[in-house]
Amino acid sequence: MWSKANNMKNLLLGLALILFVLSCETKPDTSSTETKIVAPKEKVGYALAIHGGAGFQTRESIDKETDKAVRVALNEALDAAEAILKNGGAAGDAVVAAIEILENNPEFNAGKGAVFTHDETNELDASFMDGSTMDAGAVGGVSVIKNPIKAARAVMENSPHVMLVGRGAEAFAKEQNIELVDASYFRVEDRLKSLKRAKENENEKMSKHGTVGCVAMDKSGNLAAGTSTGGMTNKRWNRIGDSPIIGAGTYANNNTCAVSSTGHGEFFIRYTVAHDISALMEYKELSLEEAANHVIQDKLKKVGGNGGVICVDKDGNISTPYNTPGMYRGYVTDKSRGVAIYKDEKW
Amino acid sequence: MWSKANNMKNLLLGLALILFVLSCETKPDTSSTETKIVAPKEKVGYALAIHGGAGFQTRESIDKETDKAVRVALNEALDAAEAILKNGGAAGDAVVAAIEILENNPEFNAGKGAVFTHDETNELDASFMDGSTMDAGAVGGVSVIKNPIKAARAVMENSPHVMLVGRGAEAFAKEQNIELVDASYFRVEDRLKSLKRAKENENEKMSKHGTVGCVAMDKSGNLAAGTSTGGMTNKRWNRIGDSPIIGAGTYANNNTCAVSSTGHGEFFIRYTVAHDISALMEYKELSLEEAANHVIQDKLKKVGGNGGVICVDKDGNISTPYNTPGMYRGYVTDKSRGVAIYKDEKW
Repeated sequence: MWSKANNMKNLLLGLALILFVLSCETKPDTSSTETKIVAPKEKVGYALAIHGGAGFQTRESIDKETDKAVRVALNEALDAAEAILKNGGAAGDAVVAAIEILENNPEFNAGKGAVFTHDETNELDASFMDGSTMDAGAVGGVSVIKNPIKAARAVMENSPHVMLVGRGAEAFAKEQNIELVDASYFRVEDRLKSLKRAKENENEKMSKHGTVGCVAMDKSGNLAAGTSTGGMTNKRWNRIGDSPIIGAGTYANNNTCAVSSTGHGEFFIRYTVAHDISALMEYKELSLEEAANHVIQDKLKKVGGNGGVICVDKDGNISTPYNTPGMYRGYVTDKSRGVAIYKDEKW
Repeated sequence: MWSKANNMKNLLLGLALILFVLSCETKPDTSSTETKIVAPKEKVGYALAIHGGAGFQTRESIDKETDKAVRVALNEALDAAEAILKNGGAAGDAVVAAIEILENNPEFNAGKGAVFTHDETNELDASFMDGSTMDAGAVGGVSVIKNPIKAARAVMENSPHVMLVGRGAEAFAKEQNIELVDASYFRVEDRLKSLKRAKENENEKMSKHGTVGCVAMDKSGNLAAGTSTGGMTNKRWNRIGDSPIIGAGTYANNNTCAVSSTGHGEFFIRYTVAHDISALMEYKELSLEEAANHVIQDKLKKVGGNGGVICVDKDGNISTPYNTPGMYRGYVTDKSRGVAIYKDEKW
């Protein structure tokens, strides 16, 4: 009798162990999640998220004026994008409209507010992907294109290529009648000061200030993603970050999700972050939330890869995990809306 | 009785249907495979594969001299790489040694033999990835670096960045004492003729001539991958292809495989080809052969993405699928060795 009961106990223990191992294998740890999950109970008609960079945003480090200006800008971008989605417009149009507004605002490290390179120039990167066609376009290291996101989309639509860089990308943009500006347009004094601080402070050699991005699902269920940046303060040697790299900084696939990244770009390239989130959904059948959290809070965090992503999936779920102190971010669906900066915000 | 038998028949039919659906979901069609699979029964000590570009290589289109010269060069590259692996050297050293030899040979579209851009210049791209550290380096659009693969590796080892382009990448290479050459070094008359043909022939506007690459597993079980190219004949606007894009042209991860791509680069970027093969192994538990064939023969073929990959997995299995008429290719392990050009070759 003792032996029979013991056998049963061992059997139950064994079964419990198997179940535990199986659950460990298929469900990554998401307990340390810092993220907004918008998983609507009823299906949303459209869904869109934006970011203005993940980084060291805390209530102590951001003054009241900046806090206010950033929220106004995020809401302006959401307004412009939502106007398009509400009227049945395309996800791609909404993405470009939102990013253009953020590029034109000096608060963000993209377009007008792009950070300075080591040589006191500005070199901007951007990319765009359409999840319905899997078409994509990107520009890297451009210095006279006012809105790099428009050039990235034009590369996709009007060239046989995906990625153009430097003077060639600028010549292409000119042929496409995309607005060019004098390089001095990007000369924002605050950014120059950041460069000088970075050069003086060995610990802050390259400040990894944010980026802007947008992901959207439109009423037809099509997905699109875009990202735009000035890169790293004090970068050298025509460095290209993850923002113009399809699969790293930007990815969209109607079968899974749309992703835009922000953070220490070198890690996002090496870990193919945007495509990895999509692959975890497609091949391992993780939810958007599980996939995005696994990559940002587990894989990247483990190796010191600071940053975050905004994602929307084919059902309109939104996830915005980041492993930095804060992230400028916002979202809108036909059911709700919010913007936030800090980690402790309910939004 | 009739009813009981019928129920059993229905039950069996139902079971068969479920099994069929399950098998369709998990096993991609690999029936149209054109590939060399080296799946050794006993574990190999090291394994390495190289390519000199997938393209329109048929017995009719390649003259005898070219056929011979290519086979000699492929064997030279295998010799140099094997000497390193045999002596317990690192996969990364073998990859760079093999690619350097192919870059120095004008038969291939990389280094010396790089094709011409629309403006009669040469713009070379290369990348390198170490699967043991997930570190990577790349250069894009460089015109005076003799061996771009060496510069790519130096970016990984001696800069905080992953990707440098244009003049900046060249300045970095100079600081690293990497050999620079006059731009005229890359002026190979045959390649200039190709450009002129491409400009005259509207149907051949951009010839997608191959690329070179190498993947290796060393005696310690570490993986590495590298790719180097001159890009597309007649390319414009500082176009960057997939070769310097981590996740598209090159990828290595000790947990899965090392991959180097060749083909119509825009498709390889949009479909994140190299990382996709790794993700199918990691998340869907496909074998190297199944994963590589699925991406090349199914996904890419369906959308007209011409090209191929060479891959080696963490157990030393090698797979070399391509969906073009031919591919310059070779492999070596401590058990066997081969080089080939055409589809009908037993090698």
